[in-house]
Amino acid sequence: MSHTYTLLASCRDRVGIVSHVSHFIAQHNGWITEASYHTDSVSHWFFMRHVIVADSLPFDIDEFQRRFLPCAEELNLQWSISDSAKPKRVVVLVSKEEHCLAELLYRWRTQDIRFEIAAVISNHGTMRDYVEFHGLPYHHIPMAQDNRQQAYAEMDTLFQTCQAEVIVLARYMQIIPEELCQQYQGRIINIHHSFLPSFVGARPYHQAYERGVKLIGATSHYVTGELDAGPIIDQDVIRVNHDTLVDDMVRLGKDVEKIVLARALRYVVEDRVIIHGNKTVVFS
Amino acid sequence: MSHTYTLLASCRDRVGIVSHVSHFIAQHNGWITEASYHTDSVSHWFFMRHVIVADSLPFDIDEFQRRFLPCAEELNLQWSISDSAKPKRVVVLVSKEEHCLAELLYRWRTQDIRFEIAAVISNHGTMRDYVEFHGLPYHHIPMAQDNRQQAYAEMDTLFQTCQAEVIVLARYMQIIPEELCQQYQGRIINIHHSFLPSFVGARPYHQAYERGVKLIGATSHYVTGELDAGPIIDQDVIRVNHDTLVDDMVRLGKDVEKIVLARALRYVVEDRVIIHGNKTVVFS
Amino acid sequence: MSHTYTLLASCRDRVGIVSHVSHFIAQHNGWITEASYHTDSVSHWFFMRHVIVADSLPFDIDEFQRRFLPCAEELNLQWSISDSAKPKRVVVLVSKEEHCLAELLYRWRTQDIRFEIAAVISNHGTMRDYVEFHGLPYHHIPMAQDNRQQAYAEMDTLFQTCQAEVIVLARYMQIIPEELCQQYQGRIINIHHSFLPSFVGARPYHQAYERGVKLIGATSHYVTGELDAGPIIDQDVIRVNHDTLVDDMVRLGKDVEKIVLARALRYVVEDRVIIHGNKTVVFS
Amino acid sequence: MSHTYTLLASCRDRVGIVSHVSHFIAQHNGWITEASYHTDSVSHWFFMRHVIVADSLPFDIDEFQRRFLPCAEELNLQWSISDSAKPKRVVVLVSKEEHCLAELLYRWRTQDIRFEIAAVISNHGTMRDYVEFHGLPYHHIPMAQDNRQQAYAEMDTLFQTCQAEVIVLARYMQIIPEELCQQYQGRIINIHHSFLPSFVGARPYHQAYERGVKLIGATSHYVTGELDAGPIIDQDVIRVNHDTLVDDMVRLGKDVEKIVLARALRYVVEDRVIIHGNKTVVFS
Repeated sequence: MSHTYTLLASCRDRVGIVSHVSHFIAQHNGWITEASYHTDSVSHWFFMRHVIVADSLPFDIDEFQRRFLPCAEELNLQWSISDSAKPKRVVVLVSKEEHCLAELLYRWRTQDIRFEIAAVISNHGTMRDYVEFHGLPYHHIPMAQDNRQQAYAEMDTLFQTCQAEVIVLARYMQIIPEELCQQYQGRIINIHHSFLPSFVGARPYHQAYERGVKLIGATSHYVTGELDAGPIIDQDVIRVNHDTLVDDMVRLGKDVEKIVLARALRYVVEDRVIIHGNKTVVFS
Repeated sequence: MSHTYTLLASCRDRVGIVSHVSHFIAQHNGWITEASYHTDSVSHWFFMRHVIVADSLPFDIDEFQRRFLPCAEELNLQWSISDSAKPKRVVVLVSKEEHCLAELLYRWRTQDIRFEIAAVISNHGTMRDYVEFHGLPYHHIPMAQDNRQQAYAEMDTLFQTCQAEVIVLARYMQIIPEELCQQYQGRIINIHHSFLPSFVGARPYHQAYERGVKLIGATSHYVTGELDAGPIIDQDVIRVNHDTLVDDMVRLGKDVEKIVLARALRYVVEDRVIIHGNKTVVFS
Repeated sequence: MSHTYTLLASCRDRVGIVSHVSHFIAQHNGWITEASYHTDSVSHWFFMRHVIVADSLPFDIDEFQRRFLPCAEELNLQWSISDSAKPKRVVVLVSKEEHCLAELLYRWRTQDIRFEIAAVISNHGTMRDYVEFHGLPYHHIPMAQDNRQQAYAEMDTLFQTCQAEVIVLARYMQIIPEELCQQYQGRIINIHHSFLPSFVGARPYHQAYERGVKLIGATSHYVTGELDAGPIIDQDVIRVNHDTLVDDMVRLGKDVEKIVLARALRYVVEDRVIIHGNKTVVFS
Repeated sequence: MSHTYTLLASCRDRVGIVSHVSHFIAQHNGWITEASYHTDSVSHWFFMRHVIVADSLPFDIDEFQRRFLPCAEELNLQWSISDSAKPKRVVVLVSKEEHCLAELLYRWRTQDIRFEIAAVISNHGTMRDYVEFHGLPYHHIPMAQDNRQQAYAEMDTLFQTCQAEVIVLARYMQIIPEELCQQYQGRIINIHHSFLPSFVGARPYHQAYERGVKLIGATSHYVTGELDAGPIIDQDVIRVNHDTLVDDMVRLGKDVEKIVLARALRYVVEDRVIIHGNKTVVFS
């Protein structure tokens, strides 16, 4: 794996943005291995992502930031640059369903996706052994009617001590309080077991069964204060028919959920996603 | 194409249904080319479909019906038998969008699907030439605020004089009145340009664009009094991304709509669909 | 999970097969929860699968076999009946790639698929810890040019002491000798990382990259003496484009491989597959 | 539809290409609505496509070409620029199968794809009425063993008098002679009814049936001297199973063929495709 910087930026659309930014990189002899652009012609907003080989530049990431500043200011860019040598720190929240956690542990163990797992948090103790086998800290924070506020405070502390950059709800079947959603805005991703916006909320496979749909799906999205209504990162579906019972949907759906969540997490930790209003630009 | 009878039946589940029915067919030496069974284990209802080579039986379809009656009564079957030599009579309703009509005309012209088009009805005159080139009757029934009742009465008359067995709303952008829905219950199929139950009603691609979904779809369903809420026959989706504008969705969606509608129509005219509550059993 | 028997059978097609078999089950009051039939109209061969609730029958599986024998003989059935209380014993062979093994361990650990892992065999020692964490035996049988015959003899002994019913090559990158293929005919399944028959043999993703295909795939099939040419159980594909390098294909392909292999294994251990010539009937 | 120019270019990769080209466009105040870039990191070749609003530039396309020349020469660009006001002239070749032709006529009639049909050529007379209804010229050029050379000479003359820019083999079941392939290199596209490279040549659905595959597909590719081996533009697949006879595959495959061909044609006439060796870069 090569050492790269990823520059993610957006601004109001105008003539010459690409020219400016690509000129800045070219004048320092920066070797661009990936470049993606998108113009939202409705909101007149422009988005871009560049991956630059670190060693092709005559300076480090801090100096890049200093030198790029005038260009960024002229264009009124909202921007960030990340370093592939510092993989994102991720905290994973789970309940009792294992498939998404197992998928993420596999991705981490084999570094199929480049990220760090700072901690696993669960309201159940069931997966402690499996997580600890991986040498990862497992925090059991039980959830009951009367301790939720305290439990979420504990979680918040953990996020901070862990320096969590991304929080993944890997079928964590609890609703995150509004305050936490706002505090970690744009950093919490969820996997919902339906093709949103169909079947928001509880027991989506039951809802799907009742409606008699011929495809079921899963959606990974950013968590906002409104349940299952945040910006969608990725979705996929699988075919079912009249023979597919709810239990079959649950089983078949797991394959879609874990793959969609893994894809979304890759996009997020590789800085491929920009949130724009309630939508996402995903440079896949 | 061989000459066959298709027996479609359902009843409360019990031991011995298949044994009874298959025994009846076997004792008359009936050659079954397709046999499909389904048990709904929630409602305890049983469904079956047999395709029998006509010439393998020692009698015609009327005699089949007479002789099968005792067996059907013993099992309390809801049943029908159809004759491949009498293709279903279909009336197609369209507005201005041509893709679904063109698809159905192609399927009919080449007999890719075995059905007859009894008439095409439109609230616009735009596609008359194209339809009449095919030697098919084109009825222009304009729709305005003040003539809807009369227009639908005219349509109803047409359905009856045409002996329409199936009515296809091929992107007919008008809402069918409740009375007609009930009168032709289980005989009107629609193509809705979204992955239902997402984006019911008007302008679903605009709704999809606003929500930022990553897949768009189309749904063919039976029409009931409740808008876009009838039993689903088939659905499919296609991938979109942040770059896909509403106009692109409209364009991409057409490919899905016409294929899904054609599949649904095939299922219907080949007697592969049984409506059960608000769902369908589709022996595809 | 209910206790069921699965009857899998095939014979030359004739009138009355379903009638006979369903009559036999019905007369003993057998409650059929799944029934699937297929006629191969080219070879005139008939296939069927019944799942029967064990407790609905007045006798056990041995008595079923005795009593069914005359019926089976009259129809010249090739048949087997299995007991859900005795899950299939599976031996998994792996090399260094972990994704398929991890997937199978997850399926086994959570009993998402009902089967037993009798042993894991590898030509490398790398995954010992992970397998042993699961409480499963790990056998390291190294493969070198000069010990292959002895290594495969050792493997054969293991298959027998393990009473292996199914052997899964979970990206086991060694070619199984002809004798073993024959000895375990219809019991070894492989996952090949291409959409067969495209790209047989080594480095299929490199071949796919060179050819410039726009979809890549994976195929699970029974192993025969001819490389990658056995009966196909399941396949799937994923979209790629000009941007997808070989390494990306390897990475993307893993998601397809593991899901296809898991589906195929489910079909096999749930007695849903009948091999017919070089093809399969899969009652999915 | 807006009036745009599409600039398609490629060259050996080096630092500063995007900077150069985007600077050229920006300095003339060119409004870029689509910009796509691709680096082939194996061959070190760089590809790009820009769509520029015609009216945003202070000069016309001829002047653009003159002024861009120095920039293009410095970068050693292989490039072309096209004008949306001059849709591509397409000649369609068909045999007896109607589905692809009907699809293309629909796309042209509704301008779902922006192109002109200069002529339809067939070795049969069967579709003359349907084509002539559209007001398009239909040329019947029969093919027999002893007149092929003359027939292809006639075709060549037609291509030239038609000023054909793209030639589409819409299930034209004849092999194009090597000389024509070379003369019209990069301008003839074919739809092959298999998922290439599987099942090259005649009767691919028969081959697929024999092999027992679980998905069948279609491939649109540029025609070269080697049968079914040219650069692939697009592919897709559809699921089949043990129940799918060859005739069913033929029928199901048609839906895939026509959609894949239409997608490929769109890419071609919208200048989204660059041929690179035996592969394509498709800026979809």
